[in-house]
Amino acid sequence: MARWQPNAPERLVVAALDLFAERGYENTTVVEIAERAGLTKSTFFRHFRDKREVLCGDRVTGLVVKGITAAPAAASSLEAVTCALDMIGREAFTPDRREFSARRRAVIAANPELREREALKGLILTASMIDALKRRGVPDLTSRVAAELGALALTIAYERWSDTTNGDEFSELARRTLSEVQAASAMC
Amino acid sequence: MARWQPNAPERLVVAALDLFAERGYENTTVVEIAERAGLTKSTFFRHFRDKREVLCGDRVTGLVVKGITAAPAAASSLEAVTCALDMIGREAFTPDRREFSARRRAVIAANPELREREALKGLILTASMIDALKRRGVPDLTSRVAAELGALALTIAYERWSDTTNGDEFSELARRTLSEVQAASAMC
Repeated sequence: MARWQPNAPERLVVAALDLFAERGYENTTVVEIAERAGLTKSTFFRHFRDKREVLCGDRVTGLVVKGITAAPAAASSLEAVTCALDMIGREAFTPDRREFSARRRAVIAANPELREREALKGLILTASMIDALKRRGVPDLTSRVAAELGALALTIAYERWSDTTNGDEFSELARRTLSEVQAASAMC
Repeated sequence: MARWQPNAPERLVVAALDLFAERGYENTTVVEIAERAGLTKSTFFRHFRDKREVLCGDRVTGLVVKGITAAPAAASSLEAVTCALDMIGREAFTPDRREFSARRRAVIAANPELREREALKGLILTASMIDALKRRGVPDLTSRVAAELGALALTIAYERWSDTTNGDEFSELARRTLSEVQAASAMC
């Protein structure tokens, strides 16, 4: 039973989403999630710390930092953020993940504990963006403002993208959203 | 013992801060906080839901909403936010509260559980600002951008104000900070 299982994390996340939607977050156990995925409890804990973790990975934060760091040296703060949003579109929010993301978002929206966890992850994401921008030599205040605007654009773009009635790719949507956020900041 | 006690909330908060600083947040009980304040446990629970609540009141959120709502009809989003920051300076972050605020901030910074609670309160504050701006007829995206910039200015101004080496009044500091945030948003 301890042998390697292909796509174990994805199977566990899909099983968890199914169960949370069917019977609620509180009424679902880790054992049930593993069973539904055809895996064991120990496989679950090799990939996730606990039941909440299965819904809220840290992958996007890592990609944002990587994207900002890899941006050309001459890029402005928000151009570096655009590079990060492009990277998320290429490596995380790909078209085949859209339906899953919409379900994930609906399950989180319906559960206060998951909403709280998701909100705290958002704050960690913003703090990571600030650090990555400062490492590029961006002054402290500018880094904080650019990270807030970038995090807001990411949130809105994710809302728009995971709305399945909308057909655009994430990177395209995110670029447009960031431009709108920047324009709004000049008018408020 | 159940009679009305003058300044009970303030006395409880000061007692809690003293005990958290002396022996740590985890090692302090509600009974000990009440005793240190010369009050009973039931008086404590008349004012606060639990031990964390004693440090993180919702008062600022109420003042922000009141300030945005009371701003002149012709005020822009960020001018309405300025009215809110002025109101906080007049009614909450008054000069006599500065030393207390500096201690409160140090205790929260040293405790992960309190930091998490404080962060979630910040998100509620931002959501309340968005709602208050939308009720003024500000479009959705502009409300979200103005609330993020306003919340960031409030956070930075609070950091600056509660740094006791700085002598400026909160309202003055907050106005200047909001201008700096606005200028930075045009340059990132």
